[in-house]
Amino acid sequence: MRVRIAVDALGGDRDPVERVAGALAAETSEVQPVIYGPAGLDTCGLDHVVTHGMVEMDDKPADAVRGKPDSSLVRAVRAVGDGNADAVVSAGNTGAVLAASLLHIRRLESVFRPGIAVVIPSDHGPCVLIDAGATADAKPEHVLQFGFMGSIFAEEVLGIERPRVSLLSIGEEPEKGNQLTLDAHALLSASSLRFEGNMEGNALLSGETDVIVCDGFTGNVALKTLEGTVHSLLSALRGEITETTRGKVGGLLIGPAVTRLRSRLDPETTGGGYLLGLRGLVVIAHGSSSRYAIENAVRLAARGVGHDIVGRLAVALPERVVESSRSTNLSGTTRG
Amino acid sequence: MRVRIAVDALGGDRDPVERVAGALAAETSEVQPVIYGPAGLDTCGLDHVVTHGMVEMDDKPADAVRGKPDSSLVRAVRAVGDGNADAVVSAGNTGAVLAASLLHIRRLESVFRPGIAVVIPSDHGPCVLIDAGATADAKPEHVLQFGFMGSIFAEEVLGIERPRVSLLSIGEEPEKGNQLTLDAHALLSASSLRFEGNMEGNALLSGETDVIVCDGFTGNVALKTLEGTVHSLLSALRGEITETTRGKVGGLLIGPAVTRLRSRLDPETTGGGYLLGLRGLVVIAHGSSSRYAIENAVRLAARGVGHDIVGRLAVALPERVVESSRSTNLSGTTRG
Repeated sequence: MRVRIAVDALGGDRDPVERVAGALAAETSEVQPVIYGPAGLDTCGLDHVVTHGMVEMDDKPADAVRGKPDSSLVRAVRAVGDGNADAVVSAGNTGAVLAASLLHIRRLESVFRPGIAVVIPSDHGPCVLIDAGATADAKPEHVLQFGFMGSIFAEEVLGIERPRVSLLSIGEEPEKGNQLTLDAHALLSASSLRFEGNMEGNALLSGETDVIVCDGFTGNVALKTLEGTVHSLLSALRGEITETTRGKVGGLLIGPAVTRLRSRLDPETTGGGYLLGLRGLVVIAHGSSSRYAIENAVRLAARGVGHDIVGRLAVALPERVVESSRSTNLSGTTRG
Repeated sequence: MRVRIAVDALGGDRDPVERVAGALAAETSEVQPVIYGPAGLDTCGLDHVVTHGMVEMDDKPADAVRGKPDSSLVRAVRAVGDGNADAVVSAGNTGAVLAASLLHIRRLESVFRPGIAVVIPSDHGPCVLIDAGATADAKPEHVLQFGFMGSIFAEEVLGIERPRVSLLSIGEEPEKGNQLTLDAHALLSASSLRFEGNMEGNALLSGETDVIVCDGFTGNVALKTLEGTVHSLLSALRGEITETTRGKVGGLLIGPAVTRLRSRLDPETTGGGYLLGLRGLVVIAHGSSSRYAIENAVRLAARGVGHDIVGRLAVALPERVVESSRSTNLSGTTRG
């Protein structure tokens, strides 16, 4: 059986044709992308589920999900909930993907709030940042749970034993941070996680950790800042290099090195993030995703299915949460 | 009269000798650094105020200020409050600098909370980010006021007419963000500021704006992420380049271009940020500041005195705040 990946053809800044091209490039004997998009779209031979309407980037998530049940975004997400697809990829309105997922795929039993897990290509190897933008107003117990989800993800998918967990804050000392990180720090310290304390933004790429936890607002700002800085820096380097003949020659010579670097750090190489904590697999791609990014996002989704991320979280998460509740006396009462 | 800059010789990760060397390098016929540090420190001929004790990076700010009144940090800050120095530079515990400043220099009358303003060398020229870490748990009205302070700063110091103000959030649409940014967005929209809406982290360097406002937690994470990414990327580039002979030759040729780029984006070139909203001038430098960074921080302080930032904020801020209160009906009641 091929893995079926529902691909939302609409939303974001790019043409549906780009989505189709990316999905097509990811098609293999094991991976079958299915396009969810409007009638008339040329899907180049890929299966096509015809949808009606489009969720706009500024639609309110709840309204979009209720008011546009036949849109490409909602239908693609629902395909996972209904068992018609093994995973979904969308580069549309993140809030709407989240709302549609909560309604049609639903949370795993022990999960308070979903979190987006993104793999960061740090200098010491891959590490996972969670939450990259699903839960903007997270409570301390949500951040604790992101720690559990990220830790299980790092173990099962990245193959890291006893992953180190760090809390993104504004100083390494436990008393540095805002009220949320101070409270989350206390919960993480008391948990069964291998918690290594706070880390600062400048260690995102250079830090020796495996899981970086934070609320979705902070994670999103940090991740986009990282991506934007890589982009600006490589552009500026190109600009500087082409200013002089000497620089041009040097630039040609270091071209392959820059390409290797870009391919490591370019978010398009990663393709997107997993929305974890649900009963099905959802991959959230950048709104600006090119066909290359969509191709990688479909591959990411297929790998997630192969690793059975959802099944592993479903088994491991309740154990950890119960264990942690026992040791910290939090039990059900902190459920936010 | 030379401008007198009090330099805290202790705190942060570096040796006091580095602080002295940086201060010495910044000494001119117009700028007179004064070292605040322990007896026995060789200040290389610079004036030396002998202090006792040191504020540690993990000291609680309030305790440090009350319990260590004769420490280099507190004495250097107090020198500004007492009129013995025109500005102070510290690379020590930021929270303690803030607490000492609130006690010994005090807020400007109309200011709710101080904010750290850092100049970011964006692709389109300098812009100012405020708050980079003074007020970690900011309220919407604090963020609004950071907008006023940043705007006045951009006008008076950067020479930008009618500066554009953007709110750092997780989507460009007004309804994207956390509760704080949603509320701050409403206040900023209703104010007399030239508010251009939300911006995302990836636009920090590439965005066409003049003032970026956010709470101190978010600003600190974003700024440090930016700095860390620049550092990691240039290191990785160096690593890639030195792997092959071809790369090595290319690297030599593009050396000057990389140096120009690093000198634009290296936080050590900026030296630090201004702690705005006080009755005196405070420059907060990185804990990791080298002598070169301290030299630039002392110059930054001297420029701030030259521009009379404090005087200009003292005059312009109450006008703006009153004007905005009238138009938004917020008056005194939102004071946090």
